[in-house]
Amino acid sequence: MSTIDYSNINVIGFDADDTLWINENFFREAEQKFAMLFSNYETENKLTHEIMKTEVQNLPIYGYGIKGFILSMMECANEITSNNISPEQVNTILNIGKEMLNKPVDLLPGVEEVLQRLNPNFRILLITKGDLLDQERKLEKSGLVKYFHHVEVVSEKKPKNYQDLLDHLKVNTTEFLMVGNSLKSDILPLLDIGAQAIHVPFHTTWEHEKVDCVKGYNYQTVDNIKNILDFL
Amino acid sequence: MSTIDYSNINVIGFDADDTLWINENFFREAEQKFAMLFSNYETENKLTHEIMKTEVQNLPIYGYGIKGFILSMMECANEITSNNISPEQVNTILNIGKEMLNKPVDLLPGVEEVLQRLNPNFRILLITKGDLLDQERKLEKSGLVKYFHHVEVVSEKKPKNYQDLLDHLKVNTTEFLMVGNSLKSDILPLLDIGAQAIHVPFHTTWEHEKVDCVKGYNYQTVDNIKNILDFL
Repeated sequence: MSTIDYSNINVIGFDADDTLWINENFFREAEQKFAMLFSNYETENKLTHEIMKTEVQNLPIYGYGIKGFILSMMECANEITSNNISPEQVNTILNIGKEMLNKPVDLLPGVEEVLQRLNPNFRILLITKGDLLDQERKLEKSGLVKYFHHVEVVSEKKPKNYQDLLDHLKVNTTEFLMVGNSLKSDILPLLDIGAQAIHVPFHTTWEHEKVDCVKGYNYQTVDNIKNILDFL
Repeated sequence: MSTIDYSNINVIGFDADDTLWINENFFREAEQKFAMLFSNYETENKLTHEIMKTEVQNLPIYGYGIKGFILSMMECANEITSNNISPEQVNTILNIGKEMLNKPVDLLPGVEEVLQRLNPNFRILLITKGDLLDQERKLEKSGLVKYFHHVEVVSEKKPKNYQDLLDHLKVNTTEFLMVGNSLKSDILPLLDIGAQAIHVPFHTTWEHEKVDCVKGYNYQTVDNIKNILDFL
């Protein structure tokens, strides 16, 4: 059993992508399509690595989300082909993006039950990063809007972003618990500001979200989001 | 003089693009660059019209902002050239986007003085639509952050978006005044929900933001944002 005390918690924040619904898989599928498209030039491994490189280089200017990802793919394609991208490849990449933006929302197991059970007793927030419109659309499609007291789409998930949001909502860090799949974005920044966090790993994690060392941080990890009910 | 009574107003919302700083010009410049790039295919007028058409078609999926604009340009380019876009043209379009995202922020005349004068007596909000990261970056560059009590980036500026925001901020519509350059986005939706609005036209308005008939709406128009001080 947990040695962490959650009795102060009044407000719970949930990450969205890969915590409430599947997302990362769509990026991986898109990368595979991209790799097939340029399989004459490089191996799949190398191509995936190149996209990731371009994407991370462009993060400061494009931010997170599908549109920036597609623009980075386009740039990467022209690099890989030594400025020889074909009009068909341009169209295919644009279509990969539109398909991603039109994907259905698949809830992860147990999500709705958890929100239903927690909703009467806690103030529940959705805190997600990415394209504003895309995140709003996914929330709408998910049917989960009704469980959230507040929804915030942020451009980054650093300690300051969380602290500003909690200040704005007049929530004390000591009464706040965040639940999410990314150690880097959903767990460590919260522990840094004195809030609590429960990690629900997703089977796929984007390389850029991976962290090496989390020694000295005190947080719970659960296999399934339903397990957080045991602590609350 | 105005016959509109602003004595109930406690909270003032400002639009950002083309109200506080120049924005639309950058899109027009980008369209001109695009037109030059494809001047072998069509006239500038026709090309500008085609971009606009693609952009509006894609609004439901891409939303507002530079990244969606660039993706639409890429798509439009392939259509105009009958699937014959060149790798150099792909690069040029990507670079047009990056240049736009890196533009400096040029405040419109009088903006800082207005915010400075109003800040002690009113709760001041920034309400803008577009890419989240891009809008945050512009606000940062503008040096105006300190004047705003709250900043909200919205995906749309329809009556419901404003009503939801005011509810969330516990602001009555009758105490709220919006100031902005777009009749469609900053003025009419506010009058629809019983709030007030002052129109500060900008010399360039995007075709998509133009409205024809505003009969029956009661709002003030001023030439320069400084003139709003006369009423408040």
